[in-house]
Amino acid sequence: MATPALASTNIVLRLEIEKDKITFGQIATAIGDAGGDIVAVDMNRTDKTTTVRDVTVNITDTLAREKIVAILRSLAGVNVVQVSDQTFLAHLGGKIEVTPKMAIKTRDDLSRVYTPGVARVCMAIHEQPSRAYSLTIKRNTIAVVSDGSAVLGLGNIGPEAAMPVMEGKAMLFKQFAGVDAFPICLDTQDTEEIIRTIKLIAPAFGGINLEDISSPRCFEIERRLIEELDIPVFHDDQHGTAVVLLAGIYNSLKLVDKKLEECKIVLCGIGAAGIACSKILLAAGAQNIIGVDRQGALVRGMRYGHDEWNWYAENTNPNMETGTLGDVIADADIFIGVSGPGVLKVEHIQKMARDPIVFAMANPTPEISPEEAEGYVRVMATGRSDYPNQINNVLCFPGLFRGVLDCRATRITEEMKLAAARAIASVVSEEELNEYYIIPSVFNPNVADRVRDAVIGAAFESGVARRKPTV
Amino acid sequence: MATPALASTNIVLRLEIEKDKITFGQIATAIGDAGGDIVAVDMNRTDKTTTVRDVTVNITDTLAREKIVAILRSLAGVNVVQVSDQTFLAHLGGKIEVTPKMAIKTRDDLSRVYTPGVARVCMAIHEQPSRAYSLTIKRNTIAVVSDGSAVLGLGNIGPEAAMPVMEGKAMLFKQFAGVDAFPICLDTQDTEEIIRTIKLIAPAFGGINLEDISSPRCFEIERRLIEELDIPVFHDDQHGTAVVLLAGIYNSLKLVDKKLEECKIVLCGIGAAGIACSKILLAAGAQNIIGVDRQGALVRGMRYGHDEWNWYAENTNPNMETGTLGDVIADADIFIGVSGPGVLKVEHIQKMARDPIVFAMANPTPEISPEEAEGYVRVMATGRSDYPNQINNVLCFPGLFRGVLDCRATRITEEMKLAAARAIASVVSEEELNEYYIIPSVFNPNVADRVRDAVIGAAFESGVARRKPTV
Repeated sequence: MATPALASTNIVLRLEIEKDKITFGQIATAIGDAGGDIVAVDMNRTDKTTTVRDVTVNITDTLAREKIVAILRSLAGVNVVQVSDQTFLAHLGGKIEVTPKMAIKTRDDLSRVYTPGVARVCMAIHEQPSRAYSLTIKRNTIAVVSDGSAVLGLGNIGPEAAMPVMEGKAMLFKQFAGVDAFPICLDTQDTEEIIRTIKLIAPAFGGINLEDISSPRCFEIERRLIEELDIPVFHDDQHGTAVVLLAGIYNSLKLVDKKLEECKIVLCGIGAAGIACSKILLAAGAQNIIGVDRQGALVRGMRYGHDEWNWYAENTNPNMETGTLGDVIADADIFIGVSGPGVLKVEHIQKMARDPIVFAMANPTPEISPEEAEGYVRVMATGRSDYPNQINNVLCFPGLFRGVLDCRATRITEEMKLAAARAIASVVSEEELNEYYIIPSVFNPNVADRVRDAVIGAAFESGVARRKPTV
Repeated sequence: MATPALASTNIVLRLEIEKDKITFGQIATAIGDAGGDIVAVDMNRTDKTTTVRDVTVNITDTLAREKIVAILRSLAGVNVVQVSDQTFLAHLGGKIEVTPKMAIKTRDDLSRVYTPGVARVCMAIHEQPSRAYSLTIKRNTIAVVSDGSAVLGLGNIGPEAAMPVMEGKAMLFKQFAGVDAFPICLDTQDTEEIIRTIKLIAPAFGGINLEDISSPRCFEIERRLIEELDIPVFHDDQHGTAVVLLAGIYNSLKLVDKKLEECKIVLCGIGAAGIACSKILLAAGAQNIIGVDRQGALVRGMRYGHDEWNWYAENTNPNMETGTLGDVIADADIFIGVSGPGVLKVEHIQKMARDPIVFAMANPTPEISPEEAEGYVRVMATGRSDYPNQINNVLCFPGLFRGVLDCRATRITEEMKLAAARAIASVVSEEELNEYYIIPSVFNPNVADRVRDAVIGAAFESGVARRKPTV
């Protein structure tokens, strides 16, 4: 995970202080000696023997935090109840809220939005269920659903611990595309239970964003929900990554003047994201993708442990190349890594065709660091925000769901994903395009609108749109 | 349902007009003739032969709406696509939204609320799950859950059609008590599936408000969830009504100078609300409650169709009175109706003890109208907003959940409900109290705070509070 160098940050120490054992002056001195600068002190509570204070301390050195805490812990009469920093403070009480669109000021207001007036609205929906799209939040609301089984790079940390990620995602949906997203973290990791639960809660929602569900369950869960629900279902870890990757590849190929159809692509890490990336590349016209995992290249005719790998071997690697990454990388035009740190070596890149394109997207540590690859690659992208060309799903999911909600798409087709990728790529103009700018910033205000429009167009072409957006 | 007399309201007509068959002038004239006053015209879309216009029309007569629509429908070249009024307009696109508490302005912000910074917050919760209460929305968020099986007086209209009520409820939670409430409408009416689904989605929530679930399933669902979850679960249709009823009874008894323990209470309508009202009255000290349903008074020793009625018969009617409402109403001090329109007659009231107290809460039409009862009753309350003394759950649920969230109560005990009732009653001061003001207005700003404080106090006494609120 990217940990940018620390400039200056505040931490908040909640200290329980036994008054007869130590003075606040002694504590303040200890904090100063350890490299902290006290910027605020708030009394939390006090009684005859004890006070609890929240001490806000500015630090300019990552190590200062641990040093200050260690010194305070060593002092008699001081109990360090809690240490918060700005990241933790940003999470206090959660990051989203549910707000009314209008205030209920009068009895008339109340009788419109609640009983008795609401009864007529309920009956209108009862008579024609599709009216839920105009008269309830379904029009603009999606569920961000996780079971906490594969959260970021942290693994199976469970539903409560997954919530901060899902809340963050809900923030991004609203800020970048005006989509109301609500996090639902499920207290089960059983495939059938997850499918059933999502189907049961679906009436309120216009779409489902699946998130951080481990492989291979994520495939079955997504496939079944797409079949069984009439609202779009999208596993972002798979397809969001794939869409943004493809956008980056499109722009990279412009720089090196190659055609996707003619490229040899080696993709390392055949998990959920790797398979989705391969599928979108195939849909976009790629002819020669070779998938590599720990035991080497996947080859047609072999039998693998699960269906997805067997499918993969059947549908890629037309020349049946075998061996390790070091073998199959020879003459490759593009390397795509969704595997682990340090998998790609300089020697590998040296074997690639002219103008190597390397997307090393392992998080937090890429398959090869940009510093190491510098001079050997023509275009380099990672998943990190502290290097150029970040492949970040945020470029895709807000605009994509804005589009599917606006045209009430029943599902998200391959064409819609391809359209989203082209739209993201198009935000970087010919004049702007260079090796260090193949993909727009997540803060680029044009991205979500472009993606939305492209997705709506493709939805109509795919025949899955149910409504012509007014704007 | 209360339908207050119409003062002046706007309706919006979406008209598809064939240009070569009719002019807009002709349409405007027709609307005027039918009693409508055009206040705005918006072009929705147009092509060579057709225009679609949204025509906003002010009307002062309920019949004008139907008259205008009928005339327009009779005109050649006009297609009335849709008719909306202010109630429908208030519902367009739903009534609530999910909003970030802070804007993500910089890459630093992004890395705090999302990857990579969020990972540390996730791990902190993973290490100690109770931290979900400080670091996620769980602290302040509840689910408002319905299966759409008993919505208002509308019956089993299903989950989509129930959404407007649940959204309205979410608005009230936020506006009156700052509680974030999200509506979950379930696409199942199977008791076990409802229980299981609510348990599975519980990690994000600090409480569950059950709503509009039909009897007798609501009893089992609530009981099991209270046992199996560690967050409070509250079926508002039962206990919300019961709490506000008791508040009204407390203040009514002050007026007539009687003691609850000594009152004969006849309760008509032994459904979910009726049973809950009886239980809270028993908990408050009532000794003589007689439950009456269609077949007459429930009496100990009889066998009834379901467990709740058998329990009821065992625990009420100590003098084993039998017969119809007309029989057992003799010498009653209090009549409580949660049944249907017109059940209570003036002759019944005439048989009651001195200073009859009548709570006729059937919706939309009470057991007896206040006009009919006038002169025979001392205190009269209904469920309607257009008469004095409205027994409205809004007085209870916002402050109640504010309280349980603030002290992280594991459940809502009978003591907490009683405390809420006393708190609501206390908002009406001795000086203010009179026959037409036994219960505060839903807009009284003191209610939620009083209820909250009382509930927290009772939660500590009941031993179910997990946290001392800071304020």
